[in-house]
Amino acid sequence: MRASYHEELSSVVDDLVTMTEKVSTAVEDATRSLLDADLALAEKVIGADATLDQLHDDLESRCFTLLARQSPVAGELRTIVAALRMVADLARMGDLAAHVAKIARMRYPKPAVPEPMQQNFRRMATLAEEMVQIAGRTLRDRNVLDAEKMADDDEEVDNLRTHQFRLLLDENWNHGVEAAVDCALLGRYYERIADHAVLMGSRVIYIVTGMQPEGENWTIA
Amino acid sequence: MRASYHEELSSVVDDLVTMTEKVSTAVEDATRSLLDADLALAEKVIGADATLDQLHDDLESRCFTLLARQSPVAGELRTIVAALRMVADLARMGDLAAHVAKIARMRYPKPAVPEPMQQNFRRMATLAEEMVQIAGRTLRDRNVLDAEKMADDDEEVDNLRTHQFRLLLDENWNHGVEAAVDCALLGRYYERIADHAVLMGSRVIYIVTGMQPEGENWTIA
Repeated sequence: MRASYHEELSSVVDDLVTMTEKVSTAVEDATRSLLDADLALAEKVIGADATLDQLHDDLESRCFTLLARQSPVAGELRTIVAALRMVADLARMGDLAAHVAKIARMRYPKPAVPEPMQQNFRRMATLAEEMVQIAGRTLRDRNVLDAEKMADDDEEVDNLRTHQFRLLLDENWNHGVEAAVDCALLGRYYERIADHAVLMGSRVIYIVTGMQPEGENWTIA
Repeated sequence: MRASYHEELSSVVDDLVTMTEKVSTAVEDATRSLLDADLALAEKVIGADATLDQLHDDLESRCFTLLARQSPVAGELRTIVAALRMVADLARMGDLAAHVAKIARMRYPKPAVPEPMQQNFRRMATLAEEMVQIAGRTLRDRNVLDAEKMADDDEEVDNLRTHQFRLLLDENWNHGVEAAVDCALLGRYYERIADHAVLMGSRVIYIVTGMQPEGENWTIA
């Protein structure tokens, strides 16, 4: 019984790692659909979000079953509670990737991000996507140091967002209100993807150490 | 032992209801600070967010203790799992209210929301705040019908947001890029507060019926 319990718990964690890879692909595709104005890719991301939601529902109910089946010991309990949160983080990141793709679709064939903003968004998206990958690796390897490294990436994401505002609120901004609004929301979506990646790292730190990292981020669930 | 267990569980739920009232106040104050350009009130909301985060941490660790102390039976388990999510929803709503207040502070003494948008935001904020109150009542009374009624409010919030975009992307918009960006983000924050209120309702439906409402909202955690 304990053996099968452990097997199911580790298969839940394996599937979370797999889901993280799918979310990372969603973020990458959403970014390409946005920066290359690729309608087909945008549709793909929007369609694939339903699959991520199904993965969420499946993993979540398996966690509930594990919680209900027997009183998990400390490490198991932490893992299940963290898994419940991570699957919510992942579903949310998938929703945010779909939001990005929907803006790409809405503005097609025009690129939603004006040329002077493209480099900033390319970097921000690369960071967010890398952070999702690091979150997945951190979970797979239970490597707390990886999780802690994400703080620097997250800081760079915040700085890029500040720079976005500087660009679009500059008196020389000549791309109109629509593009400014799109960029403000897109920046928010990528910032939130990065936040959830940091949160996933915090969940792993919690699994491994039993400690919950301090800071507002932890409460962004 | 069971008795004290039940007492602690219901005191967690009582404190969630109290936290919901504090979040509702935060949303109300943030809105007044925004629409009346009230700097002192904005500072109050931003400062009070730390208290909400502390409440989150306290309630969360009490839920963990309840999960760890003994194997909860089905209804208890559902309540604890739902409580863990609701406390995250509430902390998040507090963060979003603080985001609203920070925009009010940033634009002070100018009101961040231009006059033609004020009525829309007043209504949207009223709905969001009412939805937070309904979520609290739903939890207190375990009244599933209240939770289901929130769907209509949420739809009106979405319609108001659509109308915001129509206003600020209109060719007659003459309040500049900064106000448009502020309004786009503010609309997003209120929409997310409403989403989390709907989610809290879904958690209560789950506690009472054991069923998880379908739809993307459930995965917005």
